[in-house]
Amino acid sequence: MTRTIVASATKEIIIGFDQPFCVIGERINPTGRKKLAAEMQAGNFDTVIADALAQVAAGATMLDVNAGVTAVDPNATEPALMIKTLEIVQGIVDVPLSIDSSVTAAIEAGLRVAKGRPLINSVTGELEKLEAILPLVKKYNVPVVAISNDETGISEDPDVRFAVAKRIVEHAADYGIKPEDIIVDPLVMPIGAMGTAGLQVFKLVRRLREELGVNTTCGLSNISFGLPHRHAINAAFIPMVIASGMTSAIMNPCRPQEMEMVHGANVLNATDANCQSWIRTYRDYKPSNGTAPSSAAEAVAASTGGRRRGGRSARV
Amino acid sequence: MTRTIVASATKEIIIGFDQPFCVIGERINPTGRKKLAAEMQAGNFDTVIADALAQVAAGATMLDVNAGVTAVDPNATEPALMIKTLEIVQGIVDVPLSIDSSVTAAIEAGLRVAKGRPLINSVTGELEKLEAILPLVKKYNVPVVAISNDETGISEDPDVRFAVAKRIVEHAADYGIKPEDIIVDPLVMPIGAMGTAGLQVFKLVRRLREELGVNTTCGLSNISFGLPHRHAINAAFIPMVIASGMTSAIMNPCRPQEMEMVHGANVLNATDANCQSWIRTYRDYKPSNGTAPSSAAEAVAASTGGRRRGGRSARV
Repeated sequence: MTRTIVASATKEIIIGFDQPFCVIGERINPTGRKKLAAEMQAGNFDTVIADALAQVAAGATMLDVNAGVTAVDPNATEPALMIKTLEIVQGIVDVPLSIDSSVTAAIEAGLRVAKGRPLINSVTGELEKLEAILPLVKKYNVPVVAISNDETGISEDPDVRFAVAKRIVEHAADYGIKPEDIIVDPLVMPIGAMGTAGLQVFKLVRRLREELGVNTTCGLSNISFGLPHRHAINAAFIPMVIASGMTSAIMNPCRPQEMEMVHGANVLNATDANCQSWIRTYRDYKPSNGTAPSSAAEAVAASTGGRRRGGRSARV
Repeated sequence: MTRTIVASATKEIIIGFDQPFCVIGERINPTGRKKLAAEMQAGNFDTVIADALAQVAAGATMLDVNAGVTAVDPNATEPALMIKTLEIVQGIVDVPLSIDSSVTAAIEAGLRVAKGRPLINSVTGELEKLEAILPLVKKYNVPVVAISNDETGISEDPDVRFAVAKRIVEHAADYGIKPEDIIVDPLVMPIGAMGTAGLQVFKLVRRLREELGVNTTCGLSNISFGLPHRHAINAAFIPMVIASGMTSAIMNPCRPQEMEMVHGANVLNATDANCQSWIRTYRDYKPSNGTAPSSAAEAVAASTGGRRRGGRSARV
């Protein structure tokens, strides 16, 4: 059984097929958040702190930390800012962290200060990337997210994306890195642009699990890009990828509908023993629209409301 | 490709692996609804009419019609009430109907008046049931829901439930009834009582599809019986059963969260071409909590918000 271990100073998390879905909070990331980028550049970490606390309160299993505030000379700015951001975040929350950068020096800087066993996010199948990142994976004995694109870009053909992932796993093996320390991101295309994007991911995740034995992840919200009411598309995508065998996602845990689907899919996927987490999270839930009867009332109605039909319980 | 055809006087629906999920509205059913039972017994169909219109407006593909108002001598009351209820419902909505009764005379009465190609709900694997219902399936050339229990009751062993379903399909073949006219209900246990209930159904649906080539259905809300915030469990269950290959469910289409997951899973399962149904349904959707930015704003942020990282699009 594939088990990817990540840890903070005090908390160990197992990512695996028999584990609750690992929610990697995506919010601490200035990409596309100009205000946050400006704050971080000015040494103001108020939003970082608020985002860290809010994501953990919302149920994030671990937090992604990205300090890429500028496209201009990131090598000069990003390592120091990664260190500072990681230190602040691990000072206020106890979940494991993911060191998210395309700058090798920033990843290495992060690895030097992150406590426990952080995740590196990410390496691609590009040779230059592999040769920069895999030695760090080996040296620091940490897991890494492997994104299935290479020098030729992102293929629309899922078989090519599988082949790229396979090559990364094989390349890692040459460094003595085990498959359980590679979490493959099969790349999620926007379903609005490619109607088979969902089916591709479901099939790829199954193959990655069965043929390579690796855990998987994705940037979840890419699936709904450009569509109206996209958070409900994200929400529907979650149980489907979990049913396909995906074990983590980089996503926004502060969206209640998406997190409900994570918790619900854990119950249905038998990774929430005795529904304990579900009951703890939702036992005092009150429907906001006033149309849903309480569970107790429903139970009474179902148990007293008349004969059973066929072999099926009365529906309520 | 398995295609189950149902029809009203004017509208034909295909249930199949490559079709949008078939939502069979469950509301017109006095089981467990004492007020509705009393109304129907008194010849008052106001609630029936309201439920028919509301379910179709909410997106039901077809409607289940049950007229079992009493456990006392249903043979005397149910056939006439089934006729009356079906005539009223098919007079105001144009979706196909499902004739839902455990009383054979009520099913046959319904078959005489229902227009188009209704669905019979249901037969079980009990020999007496099979010999009562299958001749009607043949005579009226209609499809039937086959519930996978028999004289021994409902087995907790999914292999036994599969075997019962297989026997029903074989028994039907003896009558010249094709597998495409059998929609198997593998029986959904409450996940709160049996932690593997979800995994059982996912596996059973896959086997029923691959080995017997049949469409499947279920009484969806059984899965969440007894749990708090059960509609979110139902909502998470929908994309998972669709990902497993289930093609219909008997459910309440008037729950927006559940219907969002049906529409979303259709998009992701590639049965909503070009997201047409999704966009038509949700293009004017406004988030109620004010925290979600509009799709257009997100698109702008993502396209202008900075460099791409790794191979993954900027997350928003």
